[in-house]
Amino acid sequence: MRVDPNVHPTVGNAPDGTILTSAPQDTAVDRAAAAARRVVDALLRTDRDNANLERVAEELDSIAAHLEEHAPEVQERLVDMWHGEGVTRHDPVTGPENALAPPLVLAGREDGSVEGVVTLTFPYQGPPGHVHGGVSALLIDHTLGVANAWAGRSGATAQLNVRYHRPTPLFEPLTVTGRLVREEGRKIETVGEIKTADGAVCVSVEALFIDKTVPRPR
Amino acid sequence: MRVDPNVHPTVGNAPDGTILTSAPQDTAVDRAAAAARRVVDALLRTDRDNANLERVAEELDSIAAHLEEHAPEVQERLVDMWHGEGVTRHDPVTGPENALAPPLVLAGREDGSVEGVVTLTFPYQGPPGHVHGGVSALLIDHTLGVANAWAGRSGATAQLNVRYHRPTPLFEPLTVTGRLVREEGRKIETVGEIKTADGAVCVSVEALFIDKTVPRPR
Repeated sequence: MRVDPNVHPTVGNAPDGTILTSAPQDTAVDRAAAAARRVVDALLRTDRDNANLERVAEELDSIAAHLEEHAPEVQERLVDMWHGEGVTRHDPVTGPENALAPPLVLAGREDGSVEGVVTLTFPYQGPPGHVHGGVSALLIDHTLGVANAWAGRSGATAQLNVRYHRPTPLFEPLTVTGRLVREEGRKIETVGEIKTADGAVCVSVEALFIDKTVPRPR
Repeated sequence: MRVDPNVHPTVGNAPDGTILTSAPQDTAVDRAAAAARRVVDALLRTDRDNANLERVAEELDSIAAHLEEHAPEVQERLVDMWHGEGVTRHDPVTGPENALAPPLVLAGREDGSVEGVVTLTFPYQGPPGHVHGGVSALLIDHTLGVANAWAGRSGATAQLNVRYHRPTPLFEPLTVTGRLVREEGRKIETVGEIKTADGAVCVSVEALFIDKTVPRPR
């Protein structure tokens, strides 16, 4: 199921696969988003009583006000952010411009699967010291969409069936994989999982996609 | 299925129900997290070429460095953040201290359900102008956990089966609901959905929880 990168949403090449998502670049916007990501994490880690959070709140509000002053209307920005084809830079899983995204970087393998490794920290916590089950669902759902693209298909998620096998640890590298396994007309079946470094499966997913997507705004 | 709020993780009362999650307060840490949330959103909206993002990146990195300097060790912070019982303030769905969280505020109803209204913006985008399917799964998964608590139970998610009925819009109030529907020994079955203001169901979920949770660190 090796696919020609030229006709698919790829943005680069890696020794062990083709990078399918837009990895962080050395641009001002990516650096700003990475710094915001670091702030979000540090806010959960810092001493509540001793980090002068009053002043931090003022500074962050001042930065937000500055950014908002330079923001176009939502509709205009929407058209701009979906300009062209290919991968997005703003989604909450792989988007380097989105501070919510870890971000996960996914590569396409010759066997038709896509794979990425990510280490999650406090912002993604559910049970004590472990990844939130909904965050796992979010990461895999997005990975399955990229797996579909790698196989030359696209579609909207119709069903996402998630199984939790064991708690997924924070602060350890996790491997997220996805693979299109069956196509029948407009129906696309895709599976994926999250594993620890020693290969233990924490979460597995079976999903059904329908080949019908929301059009990009123009 | 009305439950005594005194023995459950509730933090306040509302005219139309008991607030089950820790709503944002007028404290420095909540204001800082709210401001960080505003920065994350504004970074996705602002003009890429005209907002002096080099300087913004430097300022955000400086704030992050300050917060990190005042951060205790991860293990120490972990014990502190899980101190006591009751609702968490740091989770990625309802946590006012977590800039990833919208945050969703959930109230428990007399009929046994829990419910919250939230409007999502660019950071939560999947398809153009719509909520990421994985974000919907994240919001409902967490809501079901709170619904279990409202019914006097708790458990780890074992299965989460999500159905997507129509695209879920950004920039519109969405109602997220959850309700425990069946208990059998350690098995807990809980359902939930996300609806638009006019009542259209965008996403529905059936989930199985097992009454076995990760212990709080001490």
